[in-house]
Amino acid sequence: MMKPLGDRVIIRVLEKEEKTKSGIFLPDTAKEKPSEGEVVAVGAGKVYDNGQRVAPEVAVGDKVMFSKYAGTEVKIDGVDHLVISERDILAIL
Amino acid sequence: MMKPLGDRVIIRVLEKEEKTKSGIFLPDTAKEKPSEGEVVAVGAGKVYDNGQRVAPEVAVGDKVMFSKYAGTEVKIDGVDHLVISERDILAIL
Amino acid sequence: MMKPLGDRVIIRVLEKEEKTKSGIFLPDTAKEKPSEGEVVAVGAGKVYDNGQRVAPEVAVGDKVMFSKYAGTEVKIDGVDHLVISERDILAIL
Amino acid sequence: MMKPLGDRVIIRVLEKEEKTKSGIFLPDTAKEKPSEGEVVAVGAGKVYDNGQRVAPEVAVGDKVMFSKYAGTEVKIDGVDHLVISERDILAIL
Amino acid sequence: MMKPLGDRVIIRVLEKEEKTKSGIFLPDTAKEKPSEGEVVAVGAGKVYDNGQRVAPEVAVGDKVMFSKYAGTEVKIDGVDHLVISERDILAIL
Amino acid sequence: MMKPLGDRVIIRVLEKEEKTKSGIFLPDTAKEKPSEGEVVAVGAGKVYDNGQRVAPEVAVGDKVMFSKYAGTEVKIDGVDHLVISERDILAIL
Amino acid sequence: MMKPLGDRVIIRVLEKEEKTKSGIFLPDTAKEKPSEGEVVAVGAGKVYDNGQRVAPEVAVGDKVMFSKYAGTEVKIDGVDHLVISERDILAIL
Repeated sequence: MMKPLGDRVIIRVLEKEEKTKSGIFLPDTAKEKPSEGEVVAVGAGKVYDNGQRVAPEVAVGDKVMFSKYAGTEVKIDGVDHLVISERDILAIL
Repeated sequence: MMKPLGDRVIIRVLEKEEKTKSGIFLPDTAKEKPSEGEVVAVGAGKVYDNGQRVAPEVAVGDKVMFSKYAGTEVKIDGVDHLVISERDILAIL
Repeated sequence: MMKPLGDRVIIRVLEKEEKTKSGIFLPDTAKEKPSEGEVVAVGAGKVYDNGQRVAPEVAVGDKVMFSKYAGTEVKIDGVDHLVISERDILAIL
Repeated sequence: MMKPLGDRVIIRVLEKEEKTKSGIFLPDTAKEKPSEGEVVAVGAGKVYDNGQRVAPEVAVGDKVMFSKYAGTEVKIDGVDHLVISERDILAIL
Repeated sequence: MMKPLGDRVIIRVLEKEEKTKSGIFLPDTAKEKPSEGEVVAVGAGKVYDNGQRVAPEVAVGDKVMFSKYAGTEVKIDGVDHLVISERDILAIL
Repeated sequence: MMKPLGDRVIIRVLEKEEKTKSGIFLPDTAKEKPSEGEVVAVGAGKVYDNGQRVAPEVAVGDKVMFSKYAGTEVKIDGVDHLVISERDILAIL
Repeated sequence: MMKPLGDRVIIRVLEKEEKTKSGIFLPDTAKEKPSEGEVVAVGAGKVYDNGQRVAPEVAVGDKVMFSKYAGTEVKIDGVDHLVISERDILAIL
């Protein structure tokens, strides 16, 4: 698996039928709607201005909700993934 | 319940009839008007430039007032919620 | 009373007839003109990059002058108030 | 006298005939031209990212030169004053 | 070999036929698509606000994925290379 | 002499015939061209985010080269001067 | 020789026929192309937010590659030089 740099993580994008049963459905409004995915790789974390690297809050295997327009798309073995900054992840499901 | 990341909290948006009896009504002017909600989940807090994470000031159960256009809408069990940064919460009611 | 978050304070907006007798009148020029009000609630203060929270300089009961276009309007018991960042308060009268 | 907040100071704007005899005259060019005034109140100073407040360099009674378009105009007892950030003061005359 | 400054690294851009066999293919969508390359030189790292220099996470020989529009193109012995900031490298393949 | 605030210095602008004999002539291209002057007053220096004030690198009497469009023009005893931030000074001649 | 301030260095711009024999040629694409030069003077370095000055990575005599549009042109004894921030230098050749 690829190793993301800094505060980046790699997410396998979940199709609608795969979505968690946590009962999350998105309303039909004009506001930004998040997407869901599963974390498959986690970077070492962001370096702060005191030179300290802080580990991300997410771990491999976490189901997460993230900003729809964030990240860079890649296909890994034909499957849609995203390389995304942890700051664009809204919540662990 | 979902676990929001960083300084984010999840808020159940209050309908008008649910609003607190604290006597807050919004004037009919052109200025931005806040909304109200109840905190249902709280992130671990923002990491500052010294690498220290500072816990949010709000707790689960707090009724809060927040900027109307802030946050990301999600439905949880059919109910409108918002994932919002604590910095967009104006006050605890 | 509501508890404002971070460096925010809540101000009861003073009507013209209530204004302090300190002799402050605003000139009729194109420059931005400040408004006046009384502080009714004070947040815990801003967190700085060293993770330290610094208490605001204003206290409940202070009469203050603030930027006219700053803050978010709310009505409390039918009276106009503003939730405003302390950095938008110019001076204690 | 009002107490300005943070790094703000209050300046009584000097009319042309009052100007200091230091021989400062402004050239007729397109560049920004400064104004002159007398400091009548000084804030406690700016808080830096280490949480430390640093006192302003100016004191009450100093004659100063400041950016023409900076600050917020107020009239105190009918006299033009400016509430201005210390960073917009160029020099003590 | 050139020595890149700060947080920069030099990357030999991989042609399509050279691409790693990790099974990464890019989807045909409107989102930004990354490129691939091999790190051939690494800078001493970025200096943070505490005056500390932090070494990059990548090393010479790493195959990396980077933002398509990042960096400055140079030819070294007729071969396409990029001088790129480490922050524009998404992941080590 | 005026006392500039913060990282500002006051420069007497050198006329062309006064220019240093260091052999500096400006090319006739579209790029920004620096001006020359002599430092006549120096501020106490910029305060950094750790609350520490760092003295400027220039001293009274230094001949300096500075960005042509930087600073605020003042006339002192009829002579063109500039109040300028030290960061807009390129070099000591 | 002039003494550049802060993180600035002075570079003698290399003409094409002078260019290093390291085999660097620039491709004919739309991307930004770097220029080459020789460092002739080095500033004391940038001051970071902890008040510490960090010396530049380059030294007098280094051949460097820099962003084509960076810096301020000066002629020294009739020869084209650039005053440039170290952060605009990409690599030591």
